[in-house]
Amino acid sequence: MIQVGLIGYGYWGPNLARNFSELQGARFAACCDLRQDRLDLVALKHPGVDCTSYPQDIINNEKIDAVVIATPVSTHYDLARKALEAGKHVLIEKPITTSSSDAEKLISLAQKNNLVLTVDHTFVYTGAVRKIKEIIDQGELGDIYYFDSVRVNLGLFQHDINVIWDLVPHDLSIMDYLIGRQPKAISVFGASHLGQDIENIAYLNLKFDDSLIAHIHVNWLAPVKLRKTLISGTRKMIVYDDMENSEKVKVFDSGVSITKAPENIYRTLVQYRTGDMYAPKLDQREALNVECEQFVDAIQGGVVPVTDGNAGRRIVAMLEAAQESLEHQGTWIPVK
Amino acid sequence: MIQVGLIGYGYWGPNLARNFSELQGARFAACCDLRQDRLDLVALKHPGVDCTSYPQDIINNEKIDAVVIATPVSTHYDLARKALEAGKHVLIEKPITTSSSDAEKLISLAQKNNLVLTVDHTFVYTGAVRKIKEIIDQGELGDIYYFDSVRVNLGLFQHDINVIWDLVPHDLSIMDYLIGRQPKAISVFGASHLGQDIENIAYLNLKFDDSLIAHIHVNWLAPVKLRKTLISGTRKMIVYDDMENSEKVKVFDSGVSITKAPENIYRTLVQYRTGDMYAPKLDQREALNVECEQFVDAIQGGVVPVTDGNAGRRIVAMLEAAQESLEHQGTWIPVK
Amino acid sequence: MIQVGLIGYGYWGPNLARNFSELQGARFAACCDLRQDRLDLVALKHPGVDCTSYPQDIINNEKIDAVVIATPVSTHYDLARKALEAGKHVLIEKPITTSSSDAEKLISLAQKNNLVLTVDHTFVYTGAVRKIKEIIDQGELGDIYYFDSVRVNLGLFQHDINVIWDLVPHDLSIMDYLIGRQPKAISVFGASHLGQDIENIAYLNLKFDDSLIAHIHVNWLAPVKLRKTLISGTRKMIVYDDMENSEKVKVFDSGVSITKAPENIYRTLVQYRTGDMYAPKLDQREALNVECEQFVDAIQGGVVPVTDGNAGRRIVAMLEAAQESLEHQGTWIPVK
Amino acid sequence: MIQVGLIGYGYWGPNLARNFSELQGARFAACCDLRQDRLDLVALKHPGVDCTSYPQDIINNEKIDAVVIATPVSTHYDLARKALEAGKHVLIEKPITTSSSDAEKLISLAQKNNLVLTVDHTFVYTGAVRKIKEIIDQGELGDIYYFDSVRVNLGLFQHDINVIWDLVPHDLSIMDYLIGRQPKAISVFGASHLGQDIENIAYLNLKFDDSLIAHIHVNWLAPVKLRKTLISGTRKMIVYDDMENSEKVKVFDSGVSITKAPENIYRTLVQYRTGDMYAPKLDQREALNVECEQFVDAIQGGVVPVTDGNAGRRIVAMLEAAQESLEHQGTWIPVK
Repeated sequence: MIQVGLIGYGYWGPNLARNFSELQGARFAACCDLRQDRLDLVALKHPGVDCTSYPQDIINNEKIDAVVIATPVSTHYDLARKALEAGKHVLIEKPITTSSSDAEKLISLAQKNNLVLTVDHTFVYTGAVRKIKEIIDQGELGDIYYFDSVRVNLGLFQHDINVIWDLVPHDLSIMDYLIGRQPKAISVFGASHLGQDIENIAYLNLKFDDSLIAHIHVNWLAPVKLRKTLISGTRKMIVYDDMENSEKVKVFDSGVSITKAPENIYRTLVQYRTGDMYAPKLDQREALNVECEQFVDAIQGGVVPVTDGNAGRRIVAMLEAAQESLEHQGTWIPVK
Repeated sequence: MIQVGLIGYGYWGPNLARNFSELQGARFAACCDLRQDRLDLVALKHPGVDCTSYPQDIINNEKIDAVVIATPVSTHYDLARKALEAGKHVLIEKPITTSSSDAEKLISLAQKNNLVLTVDHTFVYTGAVRKIKEIIDQGELGDIYYFDSVRVNLGLFQHDINVIWDLVPHDLSIMDYLIGRQPKAISVFGASHLGQDIENIAYLNLKFDDSLIAHIHVNWLAPVKLRKTLISGTRKMIVYDDMENSEKVKVFDSGVSITKAPENIYRTLVQYRTGDMYAPKLDQREALNVECEQFVDAIQGGVVPVTDGNAGRRIVAMLEAAQESLEHQGTWIPVK
Repeated sequence: MIQVGLIGYGYWGPNLARNFSELQGARFAACCDLRQDRLDLVALKHPGVDCTSYPQDIINNEKIDAVVIATPVSTHYDLARKALEAGKHVLIEKPITTSSSDAEKLISLAQKNNLVLTVDHTFVYTGAVRKIKEIIDQGELGDIYYFDSVRVNLGLFQHDINVIWDLVPHDLSIMDYLIGRQPKAISVFGASHLGQDIENIAYLNLKFDDSLIAHIHVNWLAPVKLRKTLISGTRKMIVYDDMENSEKVKVFDSGVSITKAPENIYRTLVQYRTGDMYAPKLDQREALNVECEQFVDAIQGGVVPVTDGNAGRRIVAMLEAAQESLEHQGTWIPVK
Repeated sequence: MIQVGLIGYGYWGPNLARNFSELQGARFAACCDLRQDRLDLVALKHPGVDCTSYPQDIINNEKIDAVVIATPVSTHYDLARKALEAGKHVLIEKPITTSSSDAEKLISLAQKNNLVLTVDHTFVYTGAVRKIKEIIDQGELGDIYYFDSVRVNLGLFQHDINVIWDLVPHDLSIMDYLIGRQPKAISVFGASHLGQDIENIAYLNLKFDDSLIAHIHVNWLAPVKLRKTLISGTRKMIVYDDMENSEKVKVFDSGVSITKAPENIYRTLVQYRTGDMYAPKLDQREALNVECEQFVDAIQGGVVPVTDGNAGRRIVAMLEAAQESLEHQGTWIPVK
């Protein structure tokens, strides 16, 4: 039975707490938060869990096998480092750290101490994204033309990070998992409308080695909630709409082939075989549940999940390039 | 009764023909197309209209008052110049010309000869866009934060122009009309996936003098048809979704105001007053019908429509900047 | 070249006129309407067509081969009878007549005179309904459990017929075509809310020989336009939503099978294999165009369309039963 | 602090457990279920709660103030009676009992012993239904023409009750609350397709004293989940779509008024003022949370909730009439 200690019971922490508490093979044993009212809530919802306002009580607790970190991003590295040094397996809220060099240090440390280090890229574990991965890996899409993702809503603003660091990790981790290739360079356009120098809207352009391109639109000030990803290939195209109740993934049988129709002097006719569409059945299991289970399974000797430290590092490297481009008027910044 | 001659009976020409033929105060009198099968169709649908395959038959026809040009973009300038020189009023398919300097010459020529020169920015005449203009002009949105437009579908490819010159005029003309301000500079990211050096996907970033920004995504290779515009301001936000059967325009009562809630150390709480939404009743009249009527009315001494030569020139100036940026890896190009 | 005369240029007539005028093999030659302003419109849109306000000018015109009747229902029988007696082929707007006995007389007359008699059940010719027919005929649905159709909107009221005679022919003709079986009895519940004894809302129950049932909801006073049909069978289920821009037909792989799961004492667990869904590609051709072409083709010796006089009679027999039930508090009325 | 005992931890019980456990002023103290695996789950999720497989352990427990009954319908009466006799306040899952006479006995018993008796008509407590009630009470709709509700999906079958007893209580309780009037008679059409004499589809017609009518479609074998209610009045119309993520309630400014337009001899023109639509902001609080709080508040001396024993009895009286009509071929059965 893996004993889990959670640091941070704010916005996302309760979901981690609930999942670990209900997981076979794990026990939600201890929780840390700086605010007493949050700890009171833990006591109410999870009687029997040890509560503390000192992270080191979790990190130094000998009974704890794994530390789950769901605190503000700026504290991730320090807490994770200490936990790994104390011999704990670590699952960190996304993004893994504020710099790719910090992420590298954590990766080395985990490797040296033979510990599991994963990052909470939740969307990778959804039935929708896993099904799309399967479709792509079977070659159903052919060569991929572009990855286009929109993630906008009217949401809580974070005072420590901008909309890029808040929302883009979702899209980048989905892209990283599905496409399996790293962009060469990133260019970003954004704006801060609320007078705090924290960007609330951003558009990311991503270049790859070849004609594959990607684009991500994130926005905290949108009137409606949109979460829609288009992935287009030589053979088929996918629309992944996370706001759909059912049919989140639609696969369109609509490759194109160019013909120069002689009877049409104005246009190059693209034969777009808009054929059938299908919406595959998706695993309805809660993504976080799958993720927590895989983390625990890896600790017990199983396969390390795809959202390991390296995945966390790749995403942070892209975020760093994005941030630098944003600060340099959209100049293309190579991804490390 | 204004006698109208139409040059070009391809994809869009039939719509212009139909509208002028049904308009009070105008008569669809003559039509030119290079292809005989198109002229046969004109004869079938519009018996009595003079058909020719020579544009000069229209331009030099003394009975013709107004020439409507719906030919490939590269021919616009030459045909329009000749028509204006022959003393004809002119309505040109968008974009008005391939260069802003050509547009300027047409504007001067029309002015000198006291002729009406307008460009077919159809969307400006839709009930939806006119209603949004009314809402913005009444100050309901407050200061505008951003204009974000997506126009994607699986469509016919044009062999003479890329997706920017084909689709972006719609979004730019809507933006130009609604916002009433010109962007300072444009940066574009795009790609050509079909091996012809004609871009089929493009993302445009537009900077203004202040924190207002705009973004346009156009795409010929999308699995679904999307035409959605978000306009966000200090007071209210608008979603304009042209694919909705009814309720194309939704106005959200959802301004934001920042408060630093003491009980929340993690986040700057943005009070998002997601209040009521309303969808105003829209004029259902066909946009092209309104446009043709205003063109005829201007010829008869009425007010010149908003989509005049200058509007046409402004849009082309933006397209030129976009094209240049596209060819220079997304460098910011000032708009003339 | 079949010469077509149209009687009635009101709400639907213009669509028939347009289709016949553009059809290969037919010519829209003459038109009758009681109102001069409608005839003026015909002259504007279809120059060269003979216009008259006397139906007999069409019926007795020797050059006319086929008469198309798009007048109020109460006049259908008389006009059709005269046209058939004059040796004309006839296409009648739905419903074919106000009584099944009248329909029978027309069928006999057409048969005797060797003339084509069809009824304008337009929906039967849509790409959507034809595709569903194909799916059902291939046994994909298995045995059909139920046919459920909703057709509601805020519409023009007719002063001569109620909502049943106005809208239900659409659903009944779709059902008649798809299911291929006649209901045994009908029970109707409706109401008249606008003080004219013309029902504006009605719910029809239809019984068949076995456990198959059907239900139709029609409504002139609904805030939104809904046109949705559910067809459920032992193997698969179909949703046909005519308000969808694309994907009007969705086929769900979701048969059910009962298992008495021992671990669940509360419920009989129905294994609902909610599997994949697919939306087949549909023929986009205008339904009325297909219909008019098939009518002309039948006149020229081709196959008589499925929406022949008998189909018209079956639908009217159901409408008669529905009307009688409505007048008798929902009593079950056998269908003749 | 009200001590709450829950009997039945099956499908719905966990939601009641969760809400009472998080409620200020109440404590989830004891739980009964016949199955040990369910009690194990209670122990896992709610450590500290007394678990038992004997209902009397809850009913006779002196520390328990209120008993919540979430067992199969057939057991409701007996359990509730014993609990009321033992001096406990009672909240019962819908429907309150299997007969209106049983419901009357419970009402009397509660009254005699001065105990709170409520029934879990959850939808009445949703932000959507409460907002609609407010709109209707303010006279915004005018006189109501009809109430039309569709509640269909592919769901678990219950072996003890048919689709009417399972799903219709939701629609009837919403209607009862919103309209505030009882139907005079009910007629039902349904079918059983799975060979168990348990109807899986049913259509209910409801007559009132005047021209108001209601109709409810419930269905366990539908390919898609639909939960849509139309309420139409002389002034405005409402669409309540529970499957919408946001904008569940839309109010249409679309009353009708009849004019006999002289220029239109075919139709009685109904002036349908399709004006603006608005979607009011809704309280997002979980309905069950509001309900549980009101139950606890009533126990502590507050106002008795609207879903009291009498509301429960009215719904059961309608269900009885519906069941009798179903067994008599749709004969109209008066509601007691």
